[in-house]
Amino acid sequence: MRKASLPAGFRDFSPEEHSRRKTIFNIIENAFTKFNFRPIETPAIESAATLTEKYGEEGNKLLYRILNSGNFLQKVPGDALHRKDPKQLLPLLSDKGLRYDLTVPFARYVAMHQNDIAFPFKRYQMQPVWRADRPQKGRYREFYQCDADVVGSKSVIYEAEFLQVFDEVFRNLGFDKVEVKINNRKILMGIAEIAGIEKQFTGFTVALDKMDKAGREGVEEELKSRNIDPAVLASLDPLLKKDNKHISALLNELDKYLENSKTGKDGVMEMRKIFELLENQTLNNTGVTPDILLARGLDYYTGTVFEALPPGKGGGSIAGGGRYDKLTSYFGLPGVSGVGISFGIERIFDLMNEQGLFSESGQANIAVLIINFGEDLEKMAYDLLNRLRNEEIPAELHPGDKKLKKQFAYADKRKIPFTLIAGREEIQSGKLRLKDMTSGEQQVLTEQEVINKLKFISHLKEQ
Amino acid sequence: MRKASLPAGFRDFSPEEHSRRKTIFNIIENAFTKFNFRPIETPAIESAATLTEKYGEEGNKLLYRILNSGNFLQKVPGDALHRKDPKQLLPLLSDKGLRYDLTVPFARYVAMHQNDIAFPFKRYQMQPVWRADRPQKGRYREFYQCDADVVGSKSVIYEAEFLQVFDEVFRNLGFDKVEVKINNRKILMGIAEIAGIEKQFTGFTVALDKMDKAGREGVEEELKSRNIDPAVLASLDPLLKKDNKHISALLNELDKYLENSKTGKDGVMEMRKIFELLENQTLNNTGVTPDILLARGLDYYTGTVFEALPPGKGGGSIAGGGRYDKLTSYFGLPGVSGVGISFGIERIFDLMNEQGLFSESGQANIAVLIINFGEDLEKMAYDLLNRLRNEEIPAELHPGDKKLKKQFAYADKRKIPFTLIAGREEIQSGKLRLKDMTSGEQQVLTEQEVINKLKFISHLKEQ
Repeated sequence: MRKASLPAGFRDFSPEEHSRRKTIFNIIENAFTKFNFRPIETPAIESAATLTEKYGEEGNKLLYRILNSGNFLQKVPGDALHRKDPKQLLPLLSDKGLRYDLTVPFARYVAMHQNDIAFPFKRYQMQPVWRADRPQKGRYREFYQCDADVVGSKSVIYEAEFLQVFDEVFRNLGFDKVEVKINNRKILMGIAEIAGIEKQFTGFTVALDKMDKAGREGVEEELKSRNIDPAVLASLDPLLKKDNKHISALLNELDKYLENSKTGKDGVMEMRKIFELLENQTLNNTGVTPDILLARGLDYYTGTVFEALPPGKGGGSIAGGGRYDKLTSYFGLPGVSGVGISFGIERIFDLMNEQGLFSESGQANIAVLIINFGEDLEKMAYDLLNRLRNEEIPAELHPGDKKLKKQFAYADKRKIPFTLIAGREEIQSGKLRLKDMTSGEQQVLTEQEVINKLKFISHLKEQ
Repeated sequence: MRKASLPAGFRDFSPEEHSRRKTIFNIIENAFTKFNFRPIETPAIESAATLTEKYGEEGNKLLYRILNSGNFLQKVPGDALHRKDPKQLLPLLSDKGLRYDLTVPFARYVAMHQNDIAFPFKRYQMQPVWRADRPQKGRYREFYQCDADVVGSKSVIYEAEFLQVFDEVFRNLGFDKVEVKINNRKILMGIAEIAGIEKQFTGFTVALDKMDKAGREGVEEELKSRNIDPAVLASLDPLLKKDNKHISALLNELDKYLENSKTGKDGVMEMRKIFELLENQTLNNTGVTPDILLARGLDYYTGTVFEALPPGKGGGSIAGGGRYDKLTSYFGLPGVSGVGISFGIERIFDLMNEQGLFSESGQANIAVLIINFGEDLEKMAYDLLNRLRNEEIPAELHPGDKKLKKQFAYADKRKIPFTLIAGREEIQSGKLRLKDMTSGEQQVLTEQEVINKLKFISHLKEQ
């Protein structure tokens, strides 16, 4: 006999938590569906070859690996064991791992099923992923991702659509004003070209990505440490002071700044087009702001990048995404551009709890508890239970306890609004007693009157 | 660059497959909800200590184990490596594993959260589980289980309810006539007591469990190999010839047979009570038949056991379950009886495909594809797209291809019923061309007429 426990970083979800999370999933899923994305699922376990070398050095370390089944030592040569080198042993002990995100398995899916797919292919996927991260507040080792992607087209129609998807989701979640920052990796490449640092592009974007956490000084430090002259930032200052400027004015200035970079100007053109497409569309709860320093951590982005920040400061983004041109070429399918977004369910869940955006949690999925008066009357009570259920009234029969007090206490603990008393006396007289558990008041009613009353109340609730 | 692939025994689900599976999940979930079960979720990864020694020797072998993170050799003493003994090394290399079923994690959940739970606790859970089984037709290494359980009460009210849940699910799935066999482990124990083999009870039930696959001779062989006199079967023959008998007559005979076993008679009483409770309830698509040889493989059952067999022979059960009295005591919480059922999603999915019970698969989540006439007109097309979507018409704008043929081919491949042609000419005249992709017929319509027609068609479809 041992104490029941979970490994660190893993969680159970109670019915109340599950129903709150479900609220979020439903809102996101409805938005994806409204924009014609269709669901797929991929397995939790992928070949190690699919997962490794896709998430950078850090990601490789955080991958959960599955120990080979059966005699996992069979294929391990004796000298490999003696050397005690985990790097050498890892591929011998494990040829599979757990899903680390939904994007790489999706790229694998597209390459694998390319002949069955009509491109452009709009899919969504809402499944858990696993990372062997250090557990801390708000960070878990198992968490859900909710992703939508379009692959097989370079058109920025889809970028515009994703901004509408963001708005649809944030509006339905009840977030008042979400800021979505938008940039284009081509603009960043243009800036790097102008500054003559295009060969250090990855370092440049990694440094920029620290702006949120480390501020401008932090980014300048990081640039220096990577042998990049921080003057590149200063040269952008006139563009950065854009607070009161119109977006099109900013894009015009940016065009001038990037005059000598074809790539950079392509990026500006793509961004301009996205804003044009959205000109006549109303985004109610989302403000879209160009941020020419936004880089996004992931190395595979090649065009537009997005990041959604919740109202109020701190705590990081609640959604993000971007365009990638080469992801499926890892799996032998080049030339398929894609763009996608991902919602950070765990952050959204925490924020909604903080802001009280969930409606009453509701232990009460039950409208009425029938009190159980013991063996003799149980069959009659069971029949009554079924007649109520047939009228769509969520009824439950207590399994029985001689101490009736305990049965009422159960109704209280489960927050069941009514109890129904149908003892021998009540049954003989044809009059049941319905007790309102909030007021304590009892009404003597026929079965039909009980049904009418409970149906009326359920009806009010649904409105 | 490597070829995209999945490890053996694992599957992707395309949008079409996903939507078919979702049909099944929804039907099961609705039935669980109707009977007031509430959802919980537990993590995919559990401590090895939670999982091991729960599923018998065979189960232990089939558990997927997670390699410890970081330097997984750190805690392994050198001599343990030299000995090359997987049994000794396994606990040193892995302290976690993947969920193998939903019942053991649920027992762990109940013990861990016992202070927050109001008993009886009715929960359902629909999540994947993983088994390192040999892959073969219809058997996968990742598959979903859909379980409902009630813990914290010994009342057979819940057994009766579960038979109603079975019926609700099978009716909504469209299965014509499902046979649910029911037995009680106490009856089997009574039979063992009468035969004087109560100390070989587990062996007895394991042998009985082979009836489906090995037939009566197979069971007799198995009994002999376990030093149990197969005469025990023969002694039951009068009870087994019950084809034309009334259930209550069978139970009376059984009562007489088990006269000298209190446990056995308790089992008969429980079964009698279940049938009594259901007397006035109609089971439309499910026939409930007592089968006094039904044992169910799992060792933890202590009372009622169920098994649901689909119409037609072969292929095994599509659902099952039973009552267990000691499961939570593995986790330090004794005295909590529970009863549960589980649906075999993968078998149900295969059967429904075979019997053609799914409605049209429907690539067509899109009602109309707007043909894209290139950059100049794209913004106007995007606005049109949004006006259609605002009218709840599932519309999509093709991302553009100079060869219009390709755009129409896309509509065909995706089985989109209509395309909408809004080129320069159409826009100037205010008359759009709506093409029926099945008949090839084109209609010249105003935008409002297009909306009316597509809404009317969507409306018809929903009915």
